[in-house]
Amino acid sequence: MKALDIVLFGGSGDLSLRKLMPSLYFLQRDGKLPEGSRVTAVSRGEMTSEVFRALVIEKLKLYLGSEYQASAAEEFVAGIDYMALDIASGSAWGELKAHLAPSEVRDIIYYMAVPPGLFGPICKQLHLNSLNPPSSRLVVEKPLGEDEESAEAVNALLSTGFAEEQIYRIDHYLGKEAIQNLLALRFSNRLIGAVWNQEHIESVQITVAETVGLEGRAAYLDHAGVLRDMVQNHLMQILCCLAMETPLSLAADDIRDAKVRVVKSLRPITSTNIEEHVVRAQYGAGAGMPSYLQELQGSRDAAGTGETYAALKVMVDNDRWHNVPFYLRTGKRLKERFAEVIVKFRPTPRNLFGVPASNQITIELQPDMKISLDMFMKQLLSDGRDLISHRQSADLAAGSGSRIPDAYEKLLGDVMQGNQAYFVRHDEIIASWRWIDGIRKAWREAELPMHSYAAGSMGPQASKAWFDEVPFVEELKKAS
Amino acid sequence: MKALDIVLFGGSGDLSLRKLMPSLYFLQRDGKLPEGSRVTAVSRGEMTSEVFRALVIEKLKLYLGSEYQASAAEEFVAGIDYMALDIASGSAWGELKAHLAPSEVRDIIYYMAVPPGLFGPICKQLHLNSLNPPSSRLVVEKPLGEDEESAEAVNALLSTGFAEEQIYRIDHYLGKEAIQNLLALRFSNRLIGAVWNQEHIESVQITVAETVGLEGRAAYLDHAGVLRDMVQNHLMQILCCLAMETPLSLAADDIRDAKVRVVKSLRPITSTNIEEHVVRAQYGAGAGMPSYLQELQGSRDAAGTGETYAALKVMVDNDRWHNVPFYLRTGKRLKERFAEVIVKFRPTPRNLFGVPASNQITIELQPDMKISLDMFMKQLLSDGRDLISHRQSADLAAGSGSRIPDAYEKLLGDVMQGNQAYFVRHDEIIASWRWIDGIRKAWREAELPMHSYAAGSMGPQASKAWFDEVPFVEELKKAS
Repeated sequence: MKALDIVLFGGSGDLSLRKLMPSLYFLQRDGKLPEGSRVTAVSRGEMTSEVFRALVIEKLKLYLGSEYQASAAEEFVAGIDYMALDIASGSAWGELKAHLAPSEVRDIIYYMAVPPGLFGPICKQLHLNSLNPPSSRLVVEKPLGEDEESAEAVNALLSTGFAEEQIYRIDHYLGKEAIQNLLALRFSNRLIGAVWNQEHIESVQITVAETVGLEGRAAYLDHAGVLRDMVQNHLMQILCCLAMETPLSLAADDIRDAKVRVVKSLRPITSTNIEEHVVRAQYGAGAGMPSYLQELQGSRDAAGTGETYAALKVMVDNDRWHNVPFYLRTGKRLKERFAEVIVKFRPTPRNLFGVPASNQITIELQPDMKISLDMFMKQLLSDGRDLISHRQSADLAAGSGSRIPDAYEKLLGDVMQGNQAYFVRHDEIIASWRWIDGIRKAWREAELPMHSYAAGSMGPQASKAWFDEVPFVEELKKAS
Repeated sequence: MKALDIVLFGGSGDLSLRKLMPSLYFLQRDGKLPEGSRVTAVSRGEMTSEVFRALVIEKLKLYLGSEYQASAAEEFVAGIDYMALDIASGSAWGELKAHLAPSEVRDIIYYMAVPPGLFGPICKQLHLNSLNPPSSRLVVEKPLGEDEESAEAVNALLSTGFAEEQIYRIDHYLGKEAIQNLLALRFSNRLIGAVWNQEHIESVQITVAETVGLEGRAAYLDHAGVLRDMVQNHLMQILCCLAMETPLSLAADDIRDAKVRVVKSLRPITSTNIEEHVVRAQYGAGAGMPSYLQELQGSRDAAGTGETYAALKVMVDNDRWHNVPFYLRTGKRLKERFAEVIVKFRPTPRNLFGVPASNQITIELQPDMKISLDMFMKQLLSDGRDLISHRQSADLAAGSGSRIPDAYEKLLGDVMQGNQAYFVRHDEIIASWRWIDGIRKAWREAELPMHSYAAGSMGPQASKAWFDEVPFVEELKKAS
């Protein structure tokens, strides 16, 4: 692979120091950063490269813990330069250009670890200074707009200087091993592929549960709500990986074509059907924690109208998924932090043994990465009519030795390889905003109630019937 | 349940002392023998009940090991009587009749732990002495004939005094938990039921491998060969449980109807197709063990013509199993002692990931009782195209606490309950002999070669391609 110039705009910021630098450290340590590559951190403040390198070392120690190796870290930071840059200053861009000297020597990767308001100015300058050769790549992250219109506007800014093949939109859920495994699971196993449709599946539950509350992001979260902050991206990406048709090939655009088709097949949620399809809520006080509105006090810009919990009954209107509800939920201040998918199968046609439940596949995405099948077996010592449900599990991390790479490391590796399969294409973003915008319009029109749930619970009563009870993590561990 | 009189003909013989008495001991200890039941051991030799009870105690100690409990054993043998009986003596039968005094008090179970030559005389006497009321049951065991004609003759003797609903033909493989679980697995799990047919299954392997050689049964085994001694009963029963259609209900005759239908669907093996369908062999010397013919030296009645190994490619000619070969094999002096079923699935239609193998379900019947699924998952840290096969296992014995009952105990319990589901019906026996007789006729006509294999190997080269390599048990254990 050609050597790389990796340019981190916002290089001294939190995302860069907490996620990107550790990821690059591991990529270099594991020999995945091509020989002769350089990392350039760009930020507004004046700082020497020496001072910045010391800062990176300090943060690596903090975030890597026992994975930190002094010699590897020293070697890594030796390849880092720091550059102060005032976006408005033409001469500063000249300096960056001189530093990068775009040539056949290195391919450039720009990572926008900056607020979305800076995407436009930076892209414009990169274009003006011819710093965007066709081999260069641009990495951006949510929020990419807050509705269809603004998402189009953001995209217009990015495409000033970069073609779609150069743009890598990160949804870090797509970097998770357990999500990437969904395609392997579905399309390489006859046992799964054969039953993955409405004939055999009764319903699907997708949960991304958080225990955190506002974490200093009060104004933004209250404005966006979890529908826009979590459902539009992470949950819809999981839904797409579960529901997509077999892609034509494993090429990035074939996979993304199949995903977009799912989004376009979603049954629109309107003011006439929203009560059956959506539950929104805010957390009240509970388990010794304050309520959402109490937490918001003092946040000048927060109106207290954002939902901290959303549950959706989603119908995918195609042959494969006719009449199979996909139940999605996400929320803050819930009982446990976990993300998982539960696929519930229909009973056997005859139910000869009269079992009261049916088969189930549980896909744990985080914190564990595990696939479990619940199947009925004969109860030992019984006369053969009494069955019990056995759980068979495969731990994706088993036998890996030690470290599971962070999603950012995985995705940065993909950018380096030029593999866009697990990055979100423009038309995916637009299609998902269009569907989400419809829901927001419908809940305004229908004045959908804002339910309440106790902090530390699993959400409001109103969506309870859509989801199985969550066993305590300890019980889950014991059972498997 | 009504109290029982359990009468063991051949009560002082090896089967009685080694298998039946321990089974009855556990049934009594676990409260499954109805209050007021009695056990009567009947044999030719004169012996007092006291002496016989002491003999039973001694054998229980020997065969139960750490499961032996003195107080339970004393209590158990207190309910045992011994009775000497000369089959030809009318007065002896009068004594038995007086002892049993058939009435509404106890149901009688007769267990024929005697050579088949005695079935006729005993049944006749029971009939003459009116010791066969409709509530009485008769338990018999293989060999029930050695071909269709002799099996009909044996049955004629049994039915002198007993109707089909009273006759319990034991195939102890049907008493194994893992075999009984096959129905539960297939008919209570949508995930399995949906793929259990020729559309998804490519082939099935059934192996019953033994490490023992002749064990003092030289003359019988050389005469019968494993085709008659093992395939006609144990392997064909496993085949039927795997291949049967959904029974109308779990009633014994509905299950047995479904099994008979499989046997009647087997493609006949004739002198024109036998070379493609059957491999027979005898073991040669190997792994420090003598050859079959060496072992036979000194057995006057053995001609050395019996096969110690047989492998069959069996086709079930119905819609469900069109073109799916069932490979059966059994042999003596093989590498490991185990019984297992391997169900191999077809590749996914597209094989998008280009995996070199396909899904597999492994059903271990003995010594372990385990169901394992081999499924493909993403190789951790790979870019998502490299898959590895993960094995997920459910141990049927897990969580059982301690003791797994012997097949005899299980089946004796069923006889006590009057449940014939796991006993072989007359028409099953006849249908299977008819098919086996066809094979024996064909191999005589076609002069099918008698192959050779080394003792301690997994059989002859000629059938090697039909079966997967057997990993060492240790490796299997490690992988699961």
